[in-house]
Amino acid sequence: MVPAKVIIGIMGPGENATPENNEMAFQLGKAIAKEGWATLTGGRRFGVMEAAMKGAIEGDGLTIGILPTDTDKDSSNNALIKIVTGMGSGRNYITVLSSNVVVVLGMAAGTASEAALAIKANKKVILLSQDEIAIRFFKNIGTYRVLVSNTVEDTIKQIKDYLAVSKAQ
Amino acid sequence: MVPAKVIIGIMGPGENATPENNEMAFQLGKAIAKEGWATLTGGRRFGVMEAAMKGAIEGDGLTIGILPTDTDKDSSNNALIKIVTGMGSGRNYITVLSSNVVVVLGMAAGTASEAALAIKANKKVILLSQDEIAIRFFKNIGTYRVLVSNTVEDTIKQIKDYLAVSKAQ
Amino acid sequence: MVPAKVIIGIMGPGENATPENNEMAFQLGKAIAKEGWATLTGGRRFGVMEAAMKGAIEGDGLTIGILPTDTDKDSSNNALIKIVTGMGSGRNYITVLSSNVVVVLGMAAGTASEAALAIKANKKVILLSQDEIAIRFFKNIGTYRVLVSNTVEDTIKQIKDYLAVSKAQ
Amino acid sequence: MVPAKVIIGIMGPGENATPENNEMAFQLGKAIAKEGWATLTGGRRFGVMEAAMKGAIEGDGLTIGILPTDTDKDSSNNALIKIVTGMGSGRNYITVLSSNVVVVLGMAAGTASEAALAIKANKKVILLSQDEIAIRFFKNIGTYRVLVSNTVEDTIKQIKDYLAVSKAQ
Repeated sequence: MVPAKVIIGIMGPGENATPENNEMAFQLGKAIAKEGWATLTGGRRFGVMEAAMKGAIEGDGLTIGILPTDTDKDSSNNALIKIVTGMGSGRNYITVLSSNVVVVLGMAAGTASEAALAIKANKKVILLSQDEIAIRFFKNIGTYRVLVSNTVEDTIKQIKDYLAVSKAQ
Repeated sequence: MVPAKVIIGIMGPGENATPENNEMAFQLGKAIAKEGWATLTGGRRFGVMEAAMKGAIEGDGLTIGILPTDTDKDSSNNALIKIVTGMGSGRNYITVLSSNVVVVLGMAAGTASEAALAIKANKKVILLSQDEIAIRFFKNIGTYRVLVSNTVEDTIKQIKDYLAVSKAQ
Repeated sequence: MVPAKVIIGIMGPGENATPENNEMAFQLGKAIAKEGWATLTGGRRFGVMEAAMKGAIEGDGLTIGILPTDTDKDSSNNALIKIVTGMGSGRNYITVLSSNVVVVLGMAAGTASEAALAIKANKKVILLSQDEIAIRFFKNIGTYRVLVSNTVEDTIKQIKDYLAVSKAQ
Repeated sequence: MVPAKVIIGIMGPGENATPENNEMAFQLGKAIAKEGWATLTGGRRFGVMEAAMKGAIEGDGLTIGILPTDTDKDSSNNALIKIVTGMGSGRNYITVLSSNVVVVLGMAAGTASEAALAIKANKKVILLSQDEIAIRFFKNIGTYRVLVSNTVEDTIKQIKDYLAVSKAQ
C-alpha cells in the first residue's frame, strides 16, 4: 500500500490578486513542494492560483488544478494534473473537500466562498496575511477551525502541527 | 408565452438560526408570497429555510427547496417543489444562480458561502439584520452588489426597485 | 401541511429530436399536466424539452427547467421555474434525482446518460417509443426498474400505477 | 513550462465487476502506467476502479480517484490523488471531462452513464470487451467517437493513435 498525497489547497484571487499576494503565493507553493505535499488550486492562469503552482513547480512539487471550465483550454500551464469540472464556481466546494488544509491568501468573492465552504466542511483554514475585518468575520463563523498566519514559514509550521495531530487520531 | 416565476432566494442558517432570525424569515417569506414571487431556500427543515417557506405557504406562495441530499427524505414539508441535488453544500451555487435576488438573514458558514457565491455570480445581495463585521466584509468584496436592510418592509422595497430596473434593461 | 408536487421528468434530445419525438412530447406534457403533476426537463428551448413543457403549459400545468447554463438566458420560455445550475451536462444527475418517475423519449448521448443515471439512482424509468437495441441495453443494466411503453396513454397509466405503489409503502 | 499529465479514464463497475473485468482492468492500469500516463477512475475500493489503480501502482504509475463521497474515507488505497467531490454519481461528468481518452470496461448503470456523458462531451470512447448490444447502442448515439477493442494491447495502441492525432491538431 502506497500513501496518498497530502494536498494543501491555496485559495486566492485570480485577476484581482495584488503583486504581494502573488509573491507570497509563489513562496508558499515552493515551500509546500519542499515538504513533499501537493499544491491544489482553482487551476486558472491568473493571480494566486498561477503563482502558487509556479512556485510549487519550481520546488519540484506536484500541482493540481480544479478547473471551472469544461475543457482544459485557458488553464494554467503550471497545473500538472487538470481536473475538469465544467461547474464554474460550483467547483469551489470540490477544491476545499479535496484539500487536507486550506490556506486563504488574498480576498475576493470566490476566495471568500472557499473559506466559508471549508469551514462548513470542517476543514482547518489558515488565513494568511488577511485584514482585521476578514479575520473577525471568519473567526465569528469558524471559531477554532480558523487559524491566522502572516508568513509562509508560520503557515508551513501550522500545517505540520495540524497534520501531526490529524494523523495521530 | 407565460412569464417565468420571479424567484427570491432566502439564505440563512439551519439549526443555528436564532428565534429572531426565524421570526423575520417567516414574515419575509409571507411578504414575498404576497408579491407573487416564489421563495427559494436550501430546503432543509430547520431554521431560516423552514421558517421562510412556512411563511410563504401561509401567504399562498410557491416554495422551492434546493436539497443537499440525494433523496427528498428529511426535507422541509413546506417545500412545494423539491430539487434534489445530492451535492451537499455544493448545491449552494445553484441556490444563488437560481435566485433573481438573494436575501441573507442570519449567518453561519453555509450562509456566508452563499453570500460570497452570489456576489461572484453578480447577483444583487441584500444583507438583512446583519452585524457590522459581516456588512463591512461583504461590502469590501461585493461593493455595489451588496445592499443593507433592517426590516422586511425595506427588503421588499429594495427587491421591487431592483426588479424594476433589471426588467427595464 | 401541504403536499409537495409530484414531478415527472421527461428526458429527450434537444436539436436532434425527430418531429415524432416532439409531437409525442407535447402530448405527454399535456397529459401530465392534466393529472396535476409537474413536468421537469433539461430546460432548453429545443426538441423534446421544449415540446414537453409547451404541452404542459397548454394543459395549465407547472413546468420546471433544470438549466445547464449559468444564467437563464437562452432557456425555454415554457419553463415556469428555472433552476440555474451552471454545470453543463453535470446537471443530468439533478434532473433524474428530482423526478418521481423518469420518462425517456427519443435518444441521444445526454438522454442516454439520464436513463443510466436514473437507473443508478433507483428511479423507475419508462422507455417510451424506443428501439429494440435501446430497450435491450437498458433492460440489461436496469432490470425491473425499466418499463417499456409505446403510447402516451400507457405511459400515464404506468406512472399512476407506480405512484400508487410508492405512496402505499 | 512542464507538460500536463496525459490522463486515461477507466470506467467500470464496482461491486458488480466480474473476475474477468478485474483482471483486464489490472493489466490495463499497468500498461497505461508503463506509457507514462495517469490512470483516473471513480476512486472506489471495488471492482474495475480498484483493480485498474492497483495495476497502475504496480507499473509505478500515477493514480487519480474522483470520489463520490464527501470525505476520502472508504476510498481506494491505490488512489494516490483523491479528488473529493461530495456529488455522488454527479461526479461521473467530472471523471469523463478530466480524461483525455475514456476506456469502458465492464457494464453497469454508472458505467453506462459515463460512456454516454463521454460521448456527449465529445471524448474518444473505447469500448473494451463489450457485448454486441452495448456496442450497437453506443455506436448508434456516438458514431465515430466510439471505438471497439478486445485486448489491452489494442486499447493501448488505439489510445496512442488518438493522442498522436489530437496533439498534431
